[in-house]
Amino acid sequence: MKQKVQPAEGKLGILIPGLGAVATTLIAGVIASRRGLAEPVGSLTQTGHIRIGKRTDNNYPKIKDFVPVAKLEDIVFGGWDVYEDNVYQAASIAKVLDQHLLDSIKDELEQIAPMKAVFDKSYVENLDGHHVKTGETKWDLAQQTIKDIQDFKEKHGLNRIVVLWCGSTEKYFEASEIHETVEAFEAALKANDDRIAPSMIYAYAALVQGIPYVNGAPNLTVDTRALVQLSKDTNTPIAGKDFKTGQTLMKTILAPGLEARSLGVRGWFSTNILGNRDGLVLDKPENFKTKEVSKLGVLEDILRPDLHPELYGDLYHKIRINYYPPHGDNKESWDNIDIFGWLGYPMQIKINFLCRDSILAAPVALDLALFADLAKRAGMKGIQEWLSFYLKSPQTKEGLRPENDIFKQLIKLQNTLRYMMGEELITHLGLDYYEEDEA
Amino acid sequence: MKQKVQPAEGKLGILIPGLGAVATTLIAGVIASRRGLAEPVGSLTQTGHIRIGKRTDNNYPKIKDFVPVAKLEDIVFGGWDVYEDNVYQAASIAKVLDQHLLDSIKDELEQIAPMKAVFDKSYVENLDGHHVKTGETKWDLAQQTIKDIQDFKEKHGLNRIVVLWCGSTEKYFEASEIHETVEAFEAALKANDDRIAPSMIYAYAALVQGIPYVNGAPNLTVDTRALVQLSKDTNTPIAGKDFKTGQTLMKTILAPGLEARSLGVRGWFSTNILGNRDGLVLDKPENFKTKEVSKLGVLEDILRPDLHPELYGDLYHKIRINYYPPHGDNKESWDNIDIFGWLGYPMQIKINFLCRDSILAAPVALDLALFADLAKRAGMKGIQEWLSFYLKSPQTKEGLRPENDIFKQLIKLQNTLRYMMGEELITHLGLDYYEEDEA
Amino acid sequence: MKQKVQPAEGKLGILIPGLGAVATTLIAGVIASRRGLAEPVGSLTQTGHIRIGKRTDNNYPKIKDFVPVAKLEDIVFGGWDVYEDNVYQAASIAKVLDQHLLDSIKDELEQIAPMKAVFDKSYVENLDGHHVKTGETKWDLAQQTIKDIQDFKEKHGLNRIVVLWCGSTEKYFEASEIHETVEAFEAALKANDDRIAPSMIYAYAALVQGIPYVNGAPNLTVDTRALVQLSKDTNTPIAGKDFKTGQTLMKTILAPGLEARSLGVRGWFSTNILGNRDGLVLDKPENFKTKEVSKLGVLEDILRPDLHPELYGDLYHKIRINYYPPHGDNKESWDNIDIFGWLGYPMQIKINFLCRDSILAAPVALDLALFADLAKRAGMKGIQEWLSFYLKSPQTKEGLRPENDIFKQLIKLQNTLRYMMGEELITHLGLDYYEEDEA
Amino acid sequence: MKQKVQPAEGKLGILIPGLGAVATTLIAGVIASRRGLAEPVGSLTQTGHIRIGKRTDNNYPKIKDFVPVAKLEDIVFGGWDVYEDNVYQAASIAKVLDQHLLDSIKDELEQIAPMKAVFDKSYVENLDGHHVKTGETKWDLAQQTIKDIQDFKEKHGLNRIVVLWCGSTEKYFEASEIHETVEAFEAALKANDDRIAPSMIYAYAALVQGIPYVNGAPNLTVDTRALVQLSKDTNTPIAGKDFKTGQTLMKTILAPGLEARSLGVRGWFSTNILGNRDGLVLDKPENFKTKEVSKLGVLEDILRPDLHPELYGDLYHKIRINYYPPHGDNKESWDNIDIFGWLGYPMQIKINFLCRDSILAAPVALDLALFADLAKRAGMKGIQEWLSFYLKSPQTKEGLRPENDIFKQLIKLQNTLRYMMGEELITHLGLDYYEEDEA
Repeated sequence: MKQKVQPAEGKLGILIPGLGAVATTLIAGVIASRRGLAEPVGSLTQTGHIRIGKRTDNNYPKIKDFVPVAKLEDIVFGGWDVYEDNVYQAASIAKVLDQHLLDSIKDELEQIAPMKAVFDKSYVENLDGHHVKTGETKWDLAQQTIKDIQDFKEKHGLNRIVVLWCGSTEKYFEASEIHETVEAFEAALKANDDRIAPSMIYAYAALVQGIPYVNGAPNLTVDTRALVQLSKDTNTPIAGKDFKTGQTLMKTILAPGLEARSLGVRGWFSTNILGNRDGLVLDKPENFKTKEVSKLGVLEDILRPDLHPELYGDLYHKIRINYYPPHGDNKESWDNIDIFGWLGYPMQIKINFLCRDSILAAPVALDLALFADLAKRAGMKGIQEWLSFYLKSPQTKEGLRPENDIFKQLIKLQNTLRYMMGEELITHLGLDYYEEDEA
Repeated sequence: MKQKVQPAEGKLGILIPGLGAVATTLIAGVIASRRGLAEPVGSLTQTGHIRIGKRTDNNYPKIKDFVPVAKLEDIVFGGWDVYEDNVYQAASIAKVLDQHLLDSIKDELEQIAPMKAVFDKSYVENLDGHHVKTGETKWDLAQQTIKDIQDFKEKHGLNRIVVLWCGSTEKYFEASEIHETVEAFEAALKANDDRIAPSMIYAYAALVQGIPYVNGAPNLTVDTRALVQLSKDTNTPIAGKDFKTGQTLMKTILAPGLEARSLGVRGWFSTNILGNRDGLVLDKPENFKTKEVSKLGVLEDILRPDLHPELYGDLYHKIRINYYPPHGDNKESWDNIDIFGWLGYPMQIKINFLCRDSILAAPVALDLALFADLAKRAGMKGIQEWLSFYLKSPQTKEGLRPENDIFKQLIKLQNTLRYMMGEELITHLGLDYYEEDEA
Repeated sequence: MKQKVQPAEGKLGILIPGLGAVATTLIAGVIASRRGLAEPVGSLTQTGHIRIGKRTDNNYPKIKDFVPVAKLEDIVFGGWDVYEDNVYQAASIAKVLDQHLLDSIKDELEQIAPMKAVFDKSYVENLDGHHVKTGETKWDLAQQTIKDIQDFKEKHGLNRIVVLWCGSTEKYFEASEIHETVEAFEAALKANDDRIAPSMIYAYAALVQGIPYVNGAPNLTVDTRALVQLSKDTNTPIAGKDFKTGQTLMKTILAPGLEARSLGVRGWFSTNILGNRDGLVLDKPENFKTKEVSKLGVLEDILRPDLHPELYGDLYHKIRINYYPPHGDNKESWDNIDIFGWLGYPMQIKINFLCRDSILAAPVALDLALFADLAKRAGMKGIQEWLSFYLKSPQTKEGLRPENDIFKQLIKLQNTLRYMMGEELITHLGLDYYEEDEA
Repeated sequence: MKQKVQPAEGKLGILIPGLGAVATTLIAGVIASRRGLAEPVGSLTQTGHIRIGKRTDNNYPKIKDFVPVAKLEDIVFGGWDVYEDNVYQAASIAKVLDQHLLDSIKDELEQIAPMKAVFDKSYVENLDGHHVKTGETKWDLAQQTIKDIQDFKEKHGLNRIVVLWCGSTEKYFEASEIHETVEAFEAALKANDDRIAPSMIYAYAALVQGIPYVNGAPNLTVDTRALVQLSKDTNTPIAGKDFKTGQTLMKTILAPGLEARSLGVRGWFSTNILGNRDGLVLDKPENFKTKEVSKLGVLEDILRPDLHPELYGDLYHKIRINYYPPHGDNKESWDNIDIFGWLGYPMQIKINFLCRDSILAAPVALDLALFADLAKRAGMKGIQEWLSFYLKSPQTKEGLRPENDIFKQLIKLQNTLRYMMGEELITHLGLDYYEEDEA
């Protein structure tokens, strides 16, 4: 496959619906990294290594030296938002990064001003937007968005583009007949159908042009037959749903460990406190439900109560998110996990994660954008399951159980990269290390 | 390789030096499981499943149905101890299991009385032993132990035996010239050399008869050239060191997750409180050091500061074990982990694990014994690195970096089982699920 | 005042509406203590001491030797419940106490069967009751309850009675004109007014007979002008509201410490998980609100943002209770407290309390019953503010700020006992210890 | 007594041995507060209120308006240190306060340079000092220190002085015959006796001039008959030992709450991690022992196992301090408390305090200095037990049990202030609130 991967020539545009805490942290971080002011920690594409060959070869190149991902220097950021603040202003309001750092790159940050957003308050009741597009129908809004993208590409002389959703969690709803086929979807756009969420309009605008779309929220968006079909038709990769950070990250690390050891789980109580705009949006039950569904599935997929009813059949899983302004973006989670071992004896694990939401999300967003661009150049299209590693609720092929175990996700990611570059896949068998000296 | 694995015919003896909390919990649990009074939770060989074939095949047999491990019904337990209490008495003193459970299987438990132990107080200063062997030299003690094993085999009509160390942590010391070759080791036995620890005498007695030896403590024992050579000479598997339970189990689950995400770690402080005999022994600095060395290596091996100096180069790792009688066997750990992400911003993880030492260790001991016996029947000899999954400080071939990442250890274990049984190894690539429908 | 306190002669009946987890734990514990099977830990009246005189006198009698509280031997228990289980059955279902303990006192426990309860599902939607009184009006129900009490007293040859509410939290509502005067209240009883909660009927039945009433839930009940007046008219003590246990207990211990040191508080997030019937009832928002109001006031009363706006003016206080069946009665709380010190620098306190709801509540219920009986014999009537020590939301005289600081409550309790018995009050000044040797 | 308290006229010098993290945080904070840049949170003298009269009077003046403590504007700081850094430099190294704050008051901070210290490495092995006094004997060093104080007073035109120890914890040792009388002590100074610690030389230099001495470390210093006598002879107040911050602060808040409720305690495990110079000094066992003794006594004094053997007789109390550089001055504690309640049922409390050592200590140091000066003007001399509120191991009169309950300490402090100013003492009886309306 190696010969199929095209090089990362020219500039890559990353266009972001939602220039809030995550997006501005991403943008400021890339700029600071380019200027040598800080390190892009947490990003595999920037700091990760990958093992090639046998363990004894001791060959661990950096991922960015192994696969042709776009360079930070070649990235141009843009986006849309319902507030008209430029990225310097929005980042200052978000209070994630130190103001001194923001001030030191203010010149570049304030150049990036949002385009008018596609907005529909019924999908995000706790937000008010005034910097928004108007149009007769959703079809019109889609056309305006397509034009936004084309203009941006032309203005900045870009070679390629990725659209990266960093906006809010939309209210919960399920796919219906208008999300079945591309034709039905386009008809619904024209009919201004209520069931088309703003995020879907961005996704449509990207995919129809063959531009990869990354879904960083638990929104339905491209997890519909219509938009999956469109992505295949236009040879475009898609990845979603929901950046995997904080508590769910910990959960998909820990649960595989418990399952690996056949330890039973009776209950898992997860609570979160956070005070940023994300917390405010999720204070609305309709929006929390979208997030809850995204977060709840994780344990079942990893623990497989269908295979181990005696270990996980009675698992009681409860998740709470609490809006708590004193913490701002410093999201904090507390988990109580009731496990049991040998002869059913109970034990408990308590995890308190004092994390920072956007600090964890920004490198995930960066990697997803860069890998989606790589996938496009490698001729891959449709759902990119190998990017599940980064996602709370991985979109998978219909009929396929999603894989939430972060370590299986990691092997899949790494073996996919090895496969792309024509290297041997790794199984960790390693019996040869012991047998060779017998000969 | 499949045809090479011999079936598990007849009875398997598990002979245990150290009939304390772990061993009695293991024995009582196996008996209770056989009688249907409780479930052997935490044991892969008893409750684990393994995926065979493609994900879409949905074929996940139980491990015990896939590989020919000995059945619980076919196990006979015996052992040695410095106290003369039978297993019912010792288990009652250990206070791990509910007294009502112990009483309900008292008849069988009190049949198992320890043979006299090989003991040397200079290796475990906080213990006093009086139920001990006497002899002119360590060579004599080894011969007595060999005879113990032969008598036990004959008495119970056993087909095969495994020796499973569940005794105390011995004081810290390093290998010297007497541990270089089998000849030097045997000469030292005869010369009654101080540098031969009691555990080595048991190991020698087992290996010289071709009996697998499992090292459940961080003791040096078979991690010497002499005894590795002996194990190869007699076609015998060995596995060690130190059952992986509690805090280190959590560490080898969590650290791979942090490394997978390229999150930096500045400090990792681990403290433990426990009040059982193990805690008492480790209250002695010389014995704690043996344990500390076993526990400290874990992070370095997983995080690889050599590859990621910017993420893990300054990691400060500190481990404390505190004897705290109010908790008895209910070992509890508290970890504070100082991590950093995007642009170096700090975050913290706190983990409080209210565990039970012997409840976690017993199924590990069982699996190691059963897999060591399986390996013997599969013709495998020397170090069994595929059993690292169960071990805090895995013994590896000289010159090979130990693998502490529990998920790589798990894949190695599973792929080894698949390899033994002639099944295809799993790489988690899975691109075919997506490509097949394109054809 | 000492001569006024009448001795505790004869038998004391404790009649309990709500024979659930708390009540059965109380009853079984008193019986077990009487038989010498266990200790009544957590009860000041049984195990507490009180300092009398100067520090150097070293005179600390037991409270039960200092004031004439009723003896455990003289207590007779009875009660009402919507389920017909006797106390042995109800305690077995509650799963608070070890079944072996319950079995050993089964004979006495199963003698205590509930009388039919006054029940109104609209006040506790998550419960279903079938063992309930019927009557034309609430006035009829009150008369039946009065008769229950009289019959019970006669049957058991009792000298005195206390009614102790251990039932559920009723839905939230506020006092209205029918709760203004005894006359209006009695008219409403006869008119079968919706605004009279079941708990009020029990309270009325007690007070009208001069029987002390203790309100162990956050229900409105006697916190109305009508019933306060009735208690004064009949020379009867009342105490409420809501047994102070678990998280609120911790809060009223910790908050006074922070305030004592002038440390600021920005936020206090409190979450609870519990799986008993109490948790089930509180899963209903209307009932949770009653509890929430009871719990929320605590911080404001202790920290006094009116006096220290710069320290507590912006305090964000949030409380959550989550129904979590795996924990049963083992209620567990987690608090995150954001404090700040010198120059406004932030610090955090996290408290994880693995408590047992009924184990904490039972001795509180016992003390309140015994002290209410003592107060009656001391001629005290109306609100007993000196019992605030035991209560989450102390009922106080109109216009008086409730005192929630547990240490001020304790001094008030102790000085009240000293005052009752004619001993000098304690101020902790103690300068004399230093000055006397100067003379 | 009110007429006896002299007003706070003129300037007050606060002279500090040990210009490290605590002292520089104190000095910078007072300066920042004077300039209106920050608030002196955590200081009772600056932000605390005191209730005067009956609860219904609602009269809560600020403490600084009620008693004549010196104003921040009238304080002049100076001190001694083994390093020659001025306060700006030392504060920058300590990394407690934000560098931007320090820079904004740099002009004033760098004016304060340390005088040469009295130093003896055998008392603090982990420190190296080079900015130290030399002299033939300790008597000479004392005379030099006396002169330092006189010169400082003259240079700055001071009216009064307090000496405030903020230096390191010295190694553990006990008083001997040279600490029995003033004469023996002075003879030992002249004989250059090893048993006179550096801190004692500062204390002697202060007391002999009638200058109050505050002992912020657990050092023996003035807790000897000789220096107590000297303080009485010269009419000088003394206060010590060891600023009460962090874990011990929490312990003396929580333990009184448990004791108040007659809850039993089986074990209390306390661990600390900190990375400042204090942590480095305490990494030496001899110095840790001094601290350990100071910290261990707290529980026994509060819980009184002599009165409640069944509740606290078996309490196992263990304290650990771990040097952990990643946390710097951000000291963090974790406590596990094993309690039991009704019928002996066990429960657990876990407290994780993410504190800042110097942020908690600075206001305590300020209050102690200001109150010691107040006491001097009120004619109080010798041990000031009413300042126990601020101290980990309060010095008390021989034969008197120290009071560690922070709430009793607070009442003692407040009632002492009320007594000084001729106000009525408060007993919290409050029965009159209820009785008055009966008349």
